[in-house]
Amino acid sequence: MNQPHALPILAVFGGANATADETSVAERVGTMAARAGWVVLTGGGSGVMEAASRGAAEAGGMTVGILPTARAESGYPNAWVKIPVFTGAGSARNTFNVLSATLCIAIGGGAGTLSEIALALKAGTPVWCLKSWSLSPPPGADRPMPRVFETADDLLAALADRLQNVRTSKR
Amino acid sequence: MNQPHALPILAVFGGANATADETSVAERVGTMAARAGWVVLTGGGSGVMEAASRGAAEAGGMTVGILPTARAESGYPNAWVKIPVFTGAGSARNTFNVLSATLCIAIGGGAGTLSEIALALKAGTPVWCLKSWSLSPPPGADRPMPRVFETADDLLAALADRLQNVRTSKR
Amino acid sequence: MNQPHALPILAVFGGANATADETSVAERVGTMAARAGWVVLTGGGSGVMEAASRGAAEAGGMTVGILPTARAESGYPNAWVKIPVFTGAGSARNTFNVLSATLCIAIGGGAGTLSEIALALKAGTPVWCLKSWSLSPPPGADRPMPRVFETADDLLAALADRLQNVRTSKR
Amino acid sequence: MNQPHALPILAVFGGANATADETSVAERVGTMAARAGWVVLTGGGSGVMEAASRGAAEAGGMTVGILPTARAESGYPNAWVKIPVFTGAGSARNTFNVLSATLCIAIGGGAGTLSEIALALKAGTPVWCLKSWSLSPPPGADRPMPRVFETADDLLAALADRLQNVRTSKR
Repeated sequence: MNQPHALPILAVFGGANATADETSVAERVGTMAARAGWVVLTGGGSGVMEAASRGAAEAGGMTVGILPTARAESGYPNAWVKIPVFTGAGSARNTFNVLSATLCIAIGGGAGTLSEIALALKAGTPVWCLKSWSLSPPPGADRPMPRVFETADDLLAALADRLQNVRTSKR
Repeated sequence: MNQPHALPILAVFGGANATADETSVAERVGTMAARAGWVVLTGGGSGVMEAASRGAAEAGGMTVGILPTARAESGYPNAWVKIPVFTGAGSARNTFNVLSATLCIAIGGGAGTLSEIALALKAGTPVWCLKSWSLSPPPGADRPMPRVFETADDLLAALADRLQNVRTSKR
Repeated sequence: MNQPHALPILAVFGGANATADETSVAERVGTMAARAGWVVLTGGGSGVMEAASRGAAEAGGMTVGILPTARAESGYPNAWVKIPVFTGAGSARNTFNVLSATLCIAIGGGAGTLSEIALALKAGTPVWCLKSWSLSPPPGADRPMPRVFETADDLLAALADRLQNVRTSKR
Repeated sequence: MNQPHALPILAVFGGANATADETSVAERVGTMAARAGWVVLTGGGSGVMEAASRGAAEAGGMTVGILPTARAESGYPNAWVKIPVFTGAGSARNTFNVLSATLCIAIGGGAGTLSEIALALKAGTPVWCLKSWSLSPPPGADRPMPRVFETADDLLAALADRLQNVRTSKR
């Protein structure tokens, strides 16, 4: 498929309620992605989503929020979203996030984030996890799994590598 | 909300490719639900979904398939679905399954099933797991979790109890 | 596709606020469909949707409501829905209605009903209109169009014919 | 709602198969929107969608495609989409388009475009039509209607006015 103008997209997932450590990493991730010319896509809410968007926007990058709501409400979108895509589809929008991403990063997170990790695995989109859910597949089964990072530094180092290799992105 | 005619709905999740043990339990679950007057709802595919639908249909129960496809294709719906709801929405339909269910049961399963477990936790729909994914929330976080059964007998016994108490269902 | 147990589905569309004439026809349509063994599917709300569901349910038929909401609220589902499918997807659920229907009937209606007529044309599902929107395609263009009935009697006569010919249904 | 960074979004709808007149206007619309700093959002396909995207992209603007597919296929996305949002949701994505737009413009089009006009009316998003579907509401009913332009020049003049008044946009 000929997509000469398509930009690589980094999706960042995590809790709307997040710790200072989580938002600090998310903001850093957003900044790095923006500087490398990637679009930062989130669910458009607060916490980790807002931090990643802020990091990207303050670095001059493009930020997309795929919103569960049909209009601005309930904290959606956060102040740093430049392109708000209102779906009115609730958690069904989690599916769109993972299908659209070149790479997904999950930081901490609740059940919504877990669903995004799972949907990314289902869709075949690479997903990296930092201090997020631990998973074991059903006994005896072999399943695709997320790449798990033990520390923020490890994650950021791997991301720096990945962002430079934009040619290996799916678009 | 006044829903005098609404029927309780048991959603059954699991792999399209399933073991004989998994489909055997799924069929039994479907049969029990049908005999108790519950509707059996699945994603409408093969494996665990088909077995639960077959168990329900052969017992004279109603079976609904919430299909990822826009038309009959790729094994959707299986032969035992009485009401095929074609969404054409892909994995986004997983969200509709958990929102519609009174109770969800996950048996084994791959990443799609994991997403349904996660979405059920997010939606607040009770979800019971048998030989499915093991989960641990992010370090230090307290999250709603599925109810995990070690054996099929344990699951079926709990289900028998639950089906009798239809008055405690959400509708 | 082998769907030996799949039931034919009649989708009925129309305004949540409807006239007495509209609800009277809708109820009659629901009754006729139920007596012929068809499932009646609606958006699950009030007005025409409720009337069609009531007609079907009182005749002992099965009624499905594909709901825009994630839970019971805002008049969804109406009291006559037996199987409430909660999507939480807002108007996106209109697409699922037309994909799932064997035949669609639109009675009166607002912009939501117009979208369902359009989506049915797009999906290739037959759609019959009674005192609903009048449409003309773009100048010079030839488009699939709904079948328009001038009177309720004409609609009901055609429906009686159609319901008898269940073998010609798509499933 | 505080959305200091949100950009105004112009959605352009029309046929995947379009006349030269239609694509010419669509490209012009895209160019004007881009020059005024608006994002151009389409369904990401060919014809009118591609022309509007090309006009915007060649003017240095941002282009979003809300795609019905789960991956690049069947002509989605066109070559001028910078941010492809893969939904895998089929025509359900039409709903997201109208909810996200500040203003919608429909040029010609088939049943899919008609559904977008209808969904915009339902959502309360302003929709302008050029040589598209003619609509009349049910007899005796008063419904919100699109703004209809007789000529491309009329449309472009009104658009020039609208684009200057970005402060009156909903964000």
